[in-house]
Amino acid sequence: MARSRVGIWLIGARGGVAATTIVGLAALRRGLVDTVGLVSELPQFAELGLATWDNLVIGGHEIRNVTLYDAAQQLVDVSRALDPRLVVAVKEDLDAIDANIKDGTLLNVGAKIAGLAKDELREKIETPRQAISRIQADISAFAKQHELADVIVINVSSTEPPFDDSQLPTSWNELAPLLETGDCHLPASSLYGAAALELGFPYVNFTPSVGTAIPALCDLAEQKKTCHMGHDGKTGETLLKSTLAPMFAHRNLQVMSWVGHNIFGNMDATVLDDPENKKTKATSKDRLLGEIFGYHPQTLVTIEKIDSMGDWKTAWDHIHFKGFLGTPMVMQFTWQGADSLLAAPLVIDLARFAELAHRRGETGLLTSLACFFKSPLGTKQNDFAKQFDMLEAWTKS
Amino acid sequence: MARSRVGIWLIGARGGVAATTIVGLAALRRGLVDTVGLVSELPQFAELGLATWDNLVIGGHEIRNVTLYDAAQQLVDVSRALDPRLVVAVKEDLDAIDANIKDGTLLNVGAKIAGLAKDELREKIETPRQAISRIQADISAFAKQHELADVIVINVSSTEPPFDDSQLPTSWNELAPLLETGDCHLPASSLYGAAALELGFPYVNFTPSVGTAIPALCDLAEQKKTCHMGHDGKTGETLLKSTLAPMFAHRNLQVMSWVGHNIFGNMDATVLDDPENKKTKATSKDRLLGEIFGYHPQTLVTIEKIDSMGDWKTAWDHIHFKGFLGTPMVMQFTWQGADSLLAAPLVIDLARFAELAHRRGETGLLTSLACFFKSPLGTKQNDFAKQFDMLEAWTKS
Amino acid sequence: MARSRVGIWLIGARGGVAATTIVGLAALRRGLVDTVGLVSELPQFAELGLATWDNLVIGGHEIRNVTLYDAAQQLVDVSRALDPRLVVAVKEDLDAIDANIKDGTLLNVGAKIAGLAKDELREKIETPRQAISRIQADISAFAKQHELADVIVINVSSTEPPFDDSQLPTSWNELAPLLETGDCHLPASSLYGAAALELGFPYVNFTPSVGTAIPALCDLAEQKKTCHMGHDGKTGETLLKSTLAPMFAHRNLQVMSWVGHNIFGNMDATVLDDPENKKTKATSKDRLLGEIFGYHPQTLVTIEKIDSMGDWKTAWDHIHFKGFLGTPMVMQFTWQGADSLLAAPLVIDLARFAELAHRRGETGLLTSLACFFKSPLGTKQNDFAKQFDMLEAWTKS
Amino acid sequence: MARSRVGIWLIGARGGVAATTIVGLAALRRGLVDTVGLVSELPQFAELGLATWDNLVIGGHEIRNVTLYDAAQQLVDVSRALDPRLVVAVKEDLDAIDANIKDGTLLNVGAKIAGLAKDELREKIETPRQAISRIQADISAFAKQHELADVIVINVSSTEPPFDDSQLPTSWNELAPLLETGDCHLPASSLYGAAALELGFPYVNFTPSVGTAIPALCDLAEQKKTCHMGHDGKTGETLLKSTLAPMFAHRNLQVMSWVGHNIFGNMDATVLDDPENKKTKATSKDRLLGEIFGYHPQTLVTIEKIDSMGDWKTAWDHIHFKGFLGTPMVMQFTWQGADSLLAAPLVIDLARFAELAHRRGETGLLTSLACFFKSPLGTKQNDFAKQFDMLEAWTKS
Ligand SMILES: NC(=O)c1ccc[n+]([C@@H]2O[C@H](COP(=O)([O-])OP(=O)(O)OC[C@H]3O[C@@H](n4cnc5c(N)ncnc54)[C@H](O)[C@@H]3O)[C@@H](O)[C@H]2O)c1
Ligand SMILES: NC(=O)c1ccc[n+]([C@@H]2O[C@H](COP(=O)([O-])OP(=O)(O)OC[C@H]3O[C@@H](n4cnc5c(N)ncnc54)[C@H](O)[C@@H]3O)[C@@H](O)[C@H]2O)c1
Ligand SMILES: NC(=O)c1ccc[n+]([C@@H]2O[C@H](COP(=O)([O-])OP(=O)(O)OC[C@H]3O[C@@H](n4cnc5c(N)ncnc54)[C@H](O)[C@@H]3O)[C@@H](O)[C@H]2O)c1
Ligand SMILES: NC(=O)c1ccc[n+]([C@@H]2O[C@H](COP(=O)([O-])OP(=O)(O)OC[C@H]3O[C@@H](n4cnc5c(N)ncnc54)[C@H](O)[C@@H]3O)[C@@H](O)[C@H]2O)c1
Ligand code: NA
Ligand code: NA
Repeated sequence: MARSRVGIWLIGARGGVAATTIVGLAALRRGLVDTVGLVSELPQFAELGLATWDNLVIGGHEIRNVTLYDAAQQLVDVSRALDPRLVVAVKEDLDAIDANIKDGTLLNVGAKIAGLAKDELREKIETPRQAISRIQADISAFAKQHELADVIVINVSSTEPPFDDSQLPTSWNELAPLLETGDCHLPASSLYGAAALELGFPYVNFTPSVGTAIPALCDLAEQKKTCHMGHDGKTGETLLKSTLAPMFAHRNLQVMSWVGHNIFGNMDATVLDDPENKKTKATSKDRLLGEIFGYHPQTLVTIEKIDSMGDWKTAWDHIHFKGFLGTPMVMQFTWQGADSLLAAPLVIDLARFAELAHRRGETGLLTSLACFFKSPLGTKQNDFAKQFDMLEAWTKS
Repeated sequence: MARSRVGIWLIGARGGVAATTIVGLAALRRGLVDTVGLVSELPQFAELGLATWDNLVIGGHEIRNVTLYDAAQQLVDVSRALDPRLVVAVKEDLDAIDANIKDGTLLNVGAKIAGLAKDELREKIETPRQAISRIQADISAFAKQHELADVIVINVSSTEPPFDDSQLPTSWNELAPLLETGDCHLPASSLYGAAALELGFPYVNFTPSVGTAIPALCDLAEQKKTCHMGHDGKTGETLLKSTLAPMFAHRNLQVMSWVGHNIFGNMDATVLDDPENKKTKATSKDRLLGEIFGYHPQTLVTIEKIDSMGDWKTAWDHIHFKGFLGTPMVMQFTWQGADSLLAAPLVIDLARFAELAHRRGETGLLTSLACFFKSPLGTKQNDFAKQFDMLEAWTKS
Repeated sequence: MARSRVGIWLIGARGGVAATTIVGLAALRRGLVDTVGLVSELPQFAELGLATWDNLVIGGHEIRNVTLYDAAQQLVDVSRALDPRLVVAVKEDLDAIDANIKDGTLLNVGAKIAGLAKDELREKIETPRQAISRIQADISAFAKQHELADVIVINVSSTEPPFDDSQLPTSWNELAPLLETGDCHLPASSLYGAAALELGFPYVNFTPSVGTAIPALCDLAEQKKTCHMGHDGKTGETLLKSTLAPMFAHRNLQVMSWVGHNIFGNMDATVLDDPENKKTKATSKDRLLGEIFGYHPQTLVTIEKIDSMGDWKTAWDHIHFKGFLGTPMVMQFTWQGADSLLAAPLVIDLARFAELAHRRGETGLLTSLACFFKSPLGTKQNDFAKQFDMLEAWTKS
Repeated sequence: MARSRVGIWLIGARGGVAATTIVGLAALRRGLVDTVGLVSELPQFAELGLATWDNLVIGGHEIRNVTLYDAAQQLVDVSRALDPRLVVAVKEDLDAIDANIKDGTLLNVGAKIAGLAKDELREKIETPRQAISRIQADISAFAKQHELADVIVINVSSTEPPFDDSQLPTSWNELAPLLETGDCHLPASSLYGAAALELGFPYVNFTPSVGTAIPALCDLAEQKKTCHMGHDGKTGETLLKSTLAPMFAHRNLQVMSWVGHNIFGNMDATVLDDPENKKTKATSKDRLLGEIFGYHPQTLVTIEKIDSMGDWKTAWDHIHFKGFLGTPMVMQFTWQGADSLLAAPLVIDLARFAELAHRRGETGLLTSLACFFKSPLGTKQNDFAKQFDMLEAWTKS
């Protein structure tokens, strides 16, 4: 059974994914909705004693001035993705959780993200270590106030520009001292990760930002006997790629090209509209085909910000393949999903499974959770069916 | 290693699938094409000693007056699915194989199929047993002439109307006597199956017709220590359903409706345009979703004859599903495949794998070959990834 | 300027189209929404003095027991096509209009429609003439109570089975006596039409039911110096056909086949699910291509009831055409529109334009309104651009 | 009646469009194909006395080392867009026409195009005037040798980078002297245009390159009493935009965003893969929506080179529009056309109509031909139906 009460600490706590996660948990707690979309509610996971809605407490870090209710209203008005009546029904809960959300850090997030933040945060000057300490103080206070047996830190903040870790020391003992000065260029996603792991809490990176995917932070996780995983939640086009590509492989149909064009218009899209930040995302979406096929078809992944779409991410994929006797054939699909609604249940699933892993004493990368990620760390398995087998096997173990 | 020479005996030997299979094998033998589309050529099956192109000999039964070359030209001119230069390059082989193709039987095939046949066949009067004997004589002569170690009989003839076997005796010993009189209403697909099994040869049913999916014929296969499998080759829309549906299930996304609309225009389409024959096909395409989901979304499968499409089967599928917090979302796909080109390599694969099974002494239904069929006999496994796992496990066993 | 106050009398007044029309007019009157979707609000029609929102009064006939508010809630809850807050904001208006809605007639509507009706109506026995008189009494009382200068009767009730008028007399004077006995088989849509025309009011048929498309009723319109038009509002797939087909014609691209597959799930779909009623609709959707091209490509229009879709009519069209040197090419489109939301503004447009025509003293079929209809009466013009030219020319005349 | 013999002089004479045009004319002349795809063969243009296949003679300029037969074979082997048997049937004609194709100029075509050219051309040094004179000598010799009454010069060469003409003098008399020195930066498309107009021949620009769309060249056309037109042949996505956008406008449906994603893989794609050259094309494809709507929805046009597609240009368009009561709806289409096969008949049409215009003594921009162009010069009319009306009206005048 899950330890009495469990915290979910969201980095980016008033973003689209976070707000939907929070609305969803409140609605589940109030019995207003069913459990559709939650992997952890599948029958095969019923006996695992996962944390219950009543035992999950939410807090987090954020950099913008906005309320959770307003964030949720965006999904109602701009995107028609949430029912207005549902948001009104949980307004009280949203207002209460707003009190658990603290100021985050902007260290090395790049100009695009910094541009979203409130002024006082943009002007704040602190060393990485000071930022980490402040973050840890917030999380510890939250854990204490709510008498939490565990806190799962989940990064659902904006995608950062790519970060090159090749010059960093690979052990935590060597990296730690560098955090004392401004010279260390670790981005916020990694600082939050370091803060969590150092406290012994699990860290899950739902974004393509680097987070804890750095040797020295993997080292830290092992030292602290805690666990972590990432990265980039697999919610739409990439989910389909990892499902369909194996079929082409198993039929020996030769994929000549795979084109994916994504349009959406929420704040995530605004951030990804910056070429630097987009690079991080596109890399994450494009890697898997070569790994599944064993050869490299021409691939193209474009992500474009189209304001009217709001949270509706629409992807068109065009798969050009060669069949028997060289005959070219085509499969096309369009995927019309509300992005935050696809992501939020997975955030809840990840919190529950990560809590289980931590309770079971697992350390390091949770590769059994690969099926939740576009670019799962610590494994080359990108076949979704096989990844799901891994999840089932792990929960049965 | 495959026994020296192996025969493939095609029922419907001058239809679209058969002609493509024959063109393909000739082209492979002459080194004109690569092995794209052939499952049995995947690296993981390289060590099984499957029959080689040089060792495969083709014959079959047919009911129409046409040459293989003309049948192949249809795929060139009407459908632009085969390169005209390829067909010219193998014309000599096609002409030679024409000599191995004998007159089939029209017993209980229904009016639509009988309408395709040449006059002398339509007028022929024989009992089921006489038909079986004639069929067996043809196959045996073929095996003898070409010194074949085994003959795999594969049904690629037109889809028959549904056949109700509930009144039939379930043992071969009780069924066999009924074949002596015209009262036995077994359709041709079953007579060909009985003929093959009685000779101890494997029988593979690539069509949705009933074939050997009758208790008494299953009994015959066991008696004769031979093997069989069916039914309905999985080449397009159903392949995608069996690949995509598990993903929706694994993500706990609730499929509310799944609509599939298929258009094509070849002779298969002409036969399926008859409501009776279409019923057999639609049932075969529609069954699996309930089995994968464990609940029954509304499903609709329509198959329409559109002449201009020729062999190009285009399917549009619209999947309406409910995500988190009840948000409805949509996936659509279109599949544009040349039907015979998708089917032909699987016919070759099935011949090779069935020969392997027979050589290994397996009897009864070859459930390990489930991944090749829309409605695999003897198993409820409809998840394509799991079916492929079964194939791999079997070949490794 | 439009005569002081104008009535819109809706046959089928609590159906999806009607409820949306009524919600829309109330919202326009309250200034809650803009005029998107209303053709009559285009700048080129600004000077015509069309009836204003404040001057339009709604009443109608209905056969089911339901309130307008409940009908509108269906579009909120089942279809997510209307914003729940908008419906709440106009609830008062809906409740008021409910009082203007009277019991309709079920004469010759067929079993499917009769099955929707409340019991007392199903049991009612009256001759066609009695029904007409009752209808006229309702409309006249409405006109009197609200001091209306004109009443436009618009049929937005369920699609009736096909009606064969070939045995009917072609003059009103000969037809009228037949209405006195039950032997006259005129369906309800025609009886409502006769009632309106006899009162001298315009009648617009937004459905594919026969309505006033009968020589004797055309005669009646002329006698009464009033006007009428139909039939079948052009809102989705057919709108696109009438827009795209001329392009293929103008480029001399030869359309070989045009397949349209429509899925939706509202009550209209339930009625059209009856093969008899569907026939009326499919005919209406399929006619125009031959008229535009001057030759007959293979066409197929299917309409299927898929419950989860609610009011969202999704159409997939596959257009297979031959280009230069015989090269086959393909255009496909999908149209995802909320059916009632597409129809309702056109109902308002038609009321306003019909009122204008009546005020201008026009009699007979209003062919200038062809652009609003799938099967415009009295003209063979099916090219949407040309139809729109006709509308503009007429308003300028 | 067309003057006895008419020349078509193609700039880019061995490119995809040109090769297809030439194969097509040869096939028409030999009676091997019908006239599908040719606008000028519509019945309404039958009485215009347009040039006949037998009277059209082809020549042109090119910069690459390749034969017409090889260029045509590309369309057979890479793209499966032409039937191999057709190309073989006209090989003799292609070989003969090769002799009429002369070396073009590379002046100011940019690095990408220059990179395609054969070495001797890349090394050639000449002033703009020298290039013009050389071009004129080639065209004059062709006209003389084949006893041509007129020569229509049509630019079907690669798309050049954008050219800014704002610093150029606007009269020919002032521009002409600048051609004597290398300082004049007019690109090749304009030099070919100047050459043609100066000779008194019509010039048609099928590409988005600047060509004669420069005040001084318009002046030259008037001086020489000849005609010209451009630019950018309207063959696919833009054709659909100019057909569909007016429908949205006429229904007062508010288009919020229109996204078009184009993939193809021929040599045109290779050139457009250069960001500079692509800019010219994207501008040309994106302009019209604002002009049709009178407001500016968000638009995005992307063009991507996907090698496997060859000549098959596939466009996916996603049109997000707002209907009545603010309800968002979606139309999507995919267009799968063989680009050169769509373009070639229009090249022939343009030659025939331009010859007619010239014969009729028209001078300046041929705005009546607007329907053939993505960005028609000299008119703001972008509604395809209205453009076609203009063509019909002109031919009747
Ligand atoms: N389907 C999905 O929605 C999906 C799938 C996979 C990954 N993701 C990723 O999840 C992340 C969140 O997506 P979203 O749609 O909610 O985006 P969003 O822009 O709505 O939310 C991100 C939030 O993070 C906040 N933030 C940014 N930098 C921060 C920092 N340094 N500290 C604290 N807060 C910070 C922002 O203010 C914002 O509120 C993105 O990186 C996205 O790429 C989303
Ligand atoms: N992708 C595919 O093409 C595909 C996939 C799955 C199943 N199938 C099934 O395979 C079968 C063949 O498809 P096809 O496209 O080649 O059809 P086809 O109509 O081109 O060929 C069928 C051939 O069988 C012959 N035939 C009919 N009845 C016969 C009989 N009693 N004895 C001997 N010959 C007979 C016909 O004359 C014809 O030549 C069909 O049942 C089809 O449904 C095809
Ligand atoms: N886009 C569109 O929605 C669209 C487009 C073109 C045509 N139409 C046609 O408009 C009509 C209405 O469509 P809908 O979606 O509102 O359907 P609906 O089923 O929601 O509404 C029809 C209404 O008519 C009522 N009715 C049936 N028979 C009647 C009778 N004899 N007298 C009085 N009322 C009667 C029904 O009770 C129902 O309330 C249908 O015929 C439909 O085919 C709709
Ligand atoms: N549907 C269509 O194919 C279509 C539609 C509209 C416009 N266009 C335009 O038509 C042009 C031709 O398209 P394509 O597909 O044939 O391209 P292509 O690349 O196959 O052919 C262009 C030819 O022009 C030649 N060329 C380049 N620069 C030249 C110069 N300065 N002088 C002489 N020859 C030169 C090239 O060597 C090549 O053979 C492109 O600009 C394209 O954008 C094509
Ligand atoms: Na998101
Ligand atoms: Na081109």
